[in-house]
Amino acid sequence: MKTVQDYIRTIPDFPHEGIMFRDVTTLFADPRGFRMAIDQLLHPYAGQPIDRVVGLEARGFILGGAIAHQLSVGFVPIRKKGKLPAKTIEQAYTLEYGEAVVEIHDDALQPGERVLMVDDLLATGGTAEAGIKLIERLGAVVTGCAFIIDLPELGGRAKLEELGMDVHALCAYDGH
Amino acid sequence: MKTVQDYIRTIPDFPHEGIMFRDVTTLFADPRGFRMAIDQLLHPYAGQPIDRVVGLEARGFILGGAIAHQLSVGFVPIRKKGKLPAKTIEQAYTLEYGEAVVEIHDDALQPGERVLMVDDLLATGGTAEAGIKLIERLGAVVTGCAFIIDLPELGGRAKLEELGMDVHALCAYDGH
Repeated sequence: MKTVQDYIRTIPDFPHEGIMFRDVTTLFADPRGFRMAIDQLLHPYAGQPIDRVVGLEARGFILGGAIAHQLSVGFVPIRKKGKLPAKTIEQAYTLEYGEAVVEIHDDALQPGERVLMVDDLLATGGTAEAGIKLIERLGAVVTGCAFIIDLPELGGRAKLEELGMDVHALCAYDGH
Repeated sequence: MKTVQDYIRTIPDFPHEGIMFRDVTTLFADPRGFRMAIDQLLHPYAGQPIDRVVGLEARGFILGGAIAHQLSVGFVPIRKKGKLPAKTIEQAYTLEYGEAVVEIHDDALQPGERVLMVDDLLATGGTAEAGIKLIERLGAVVTGCAFIIDLPELGGRAKLEELGMDVHALCAYDGH
């Protein structure tokens, strides 16, 4: 039987030369692949209390929507700056070239709520770290960070574990 | 008991003056609201064969992920131009000012597959019409188009029904 990783397609040189882009759309499009991915993302948290699922824009919305529905809890988006309509708090993070800013509605989480944060890919961990800061600035607690893919050589897992996070990924690739 | 509409927040003058923005993030963040929304989106399709769920970027990803998982089928994204890594087909549509382009991977759907297309909002129907065209250009069949909110005065529902679509929305607002 195929594993989650077997459904992931690699696109060389996207978005620019030298990058091996791990394309999860082929995983999501397959009924068995998508079902396995969502189920396996949830296995470590069985029996743990989770109040909200936070998804990072945009592929984390696909996963986060499915997981929140499965758990019968609410879903909260973290978006790129300028997309959320009400009052937000924002967090900058460093990219390869320059900086980006993500936001969360300032009333989206309540103090003490236990949050599962999800995204498709853990690379340098920049976006994930910004997401964790936003969640914690609202007084909520990150119960876990779940990803489909880990690229451990880029240091994201180490960075999040230094922050005391419980990191869960379904598969890992060497290199970028 | 509250209805789905009761969980939707209205933000005046977003993204620009004169627009009453219907904010579904408060619906999605509430466990009961999100559960009701996904369940009610699916009620008309009970017993109907659906092979794939297509979600429109970005809020349609949250709904589409949940619905695809509930149905144990695959999820396929339609994205703004330049975001999908493999070979795509694209479709332009008219905005209030200018034009936008959306894309789908050219191997994401197979001829004859029955597709449920989902998004949060049906306004002028421009994005939805472009999405339907992309799905049909791949030879797939749109079984239904499901939305949280309909703004019937903007003509989207009428436009999609003229195309022969079965349109389902959970609530409607007068005006914009």
